[in-house]
Amino acid sequence: MGYDADATRARIFEAATTEFAEHGVAGARVDRIAEQARANKASIYSYFGNKEQLFAAVLGRKLQELMDAVCLDPARIADYAGELFDYHLAHPEVIRLLMHEALRYRDEAVPEQARRTEEYLAKSRALQAGQEAGVIDSELDPRHLLLMLMGQVCWFFAMPHVSRMLLSEPVDSEVVAAYRASVVEGARRLLKLGTLDR
Amino acid sequence: MGYDADATRARIFEAATTEFAEHGVAGARVDRIAEQARANKASIYSYFGNKEQLFAAVLGRKLQELMDAVCLDPARIADYAGELFDYHLAHPEVIRLLMHEALRYRDEAVPEQARRTEEYLAKSRALQAGQEAGVIDSELDPRHLLLMLMGQVCWFFAMPHVSRMLLSEPVDSEVVAAYRASVVEGARRLLKLGTLDR
Repeated sequence: MGYDADATRARIFEAATTEFAEHGVAGARVDRIAEQARANKASIYSYFGNKEQLFAAVLGRKLQELMDAVCLDPARIADYAGELFDYHLAHPEVIRLLMHEALRYRDEAVPEQARRTEEYLAKSRALQAGQEAGVIDSELDPRHLLLMLMGQVCWFFAMPHVSRMLLSEPVDSEVVAAYRASVVEGARRLLKLGTLDR
Repeated sequence: MGYDADATRARIFEAATTEFAEHGVAGARVDRIAEQARANKASIYSYFGNKEQLFAAVLGRKLQELMDAVCLDPARIADYAGELFDYHLAHPEVIRLLMHEALRYRDEAVPEQARRTEEYLAKSRALQAGQEAGVIDSELDPRHLLLMLMGQVCWFFAMPHVSRMLLSEPVDSEVVAAYRASVVEGARRLLKLGTLDR
């Protein structure tokens, strides 16, 4: 694939990310993506397949970037909560893509579900390793802890209108910093960090 | 308004709830709602206004029903988490409507924002009352606690595909009951219930 094709693919990917984050799978329009990317629809279909496959490619790469940037290390799990918060703050499209995916795939398998499942289970195994090492309380199922932790960290971004109503409008950097500190403390509490040797 | 008009309004409301929960604000189609409700589009517009106003009416009533059913009493806050979980389990359309609202009103005021804001602040004042009564740890801002608690309880429903991948597929009643118990314990931990007199 030559330089032009690479550049076209990159523009399509960029335009598709914006379009899907804004409109979801059903609402996204391939002709808008083509126009934004200065590409034609035929090239989108030939590079990425149909609209659902394009959405899966976009979300798959965005989640990979998130996992590459924010590592769940059980030895520094409170940092994980803070870093996950920072990542979503800097990349608001990720939570929107996840929400659109949740709404679209409520009752059916997501694309590449086996790989996705393995990624989530790897995270819960990291928590389990922390439990076995005595860093994280081991009373609760690590998969439950992971789901609750993600909700605790991500709700602020998933429900920006509720966050605005509760915290202030607009939510300025001082408000965000204070909330981030609470999120880190919330993670410590949920996992009972630093209290296990009492 | 006679009996027939009441019945028509009720059918429109029911059909609109299903349509908005499925397709969101932009994706919902008034002609589908009319068809499902055996009503005509003119009667929908005359009863409820435009599509955005109809969405606001649907979500407003659904949230009112939730608040009437699940009361945030600081003296029994762990029960609140469990009861909120049960409510969402029984009414899966509510979280979907909230997600569609979040996606639609990310950057702008929601309809009747002043009233909505007051409802959220009333909940955080209930948490604050619990803090002042010494039931809930008072280190963290009660508004932060409320947002984190909602995320902790609701993520399971907001991300059903992730829950399925992590917990089992399908998520059966035993899995749900175990997760619910973790949610109640998670709320106890987040708010430091029962540990304050140590």
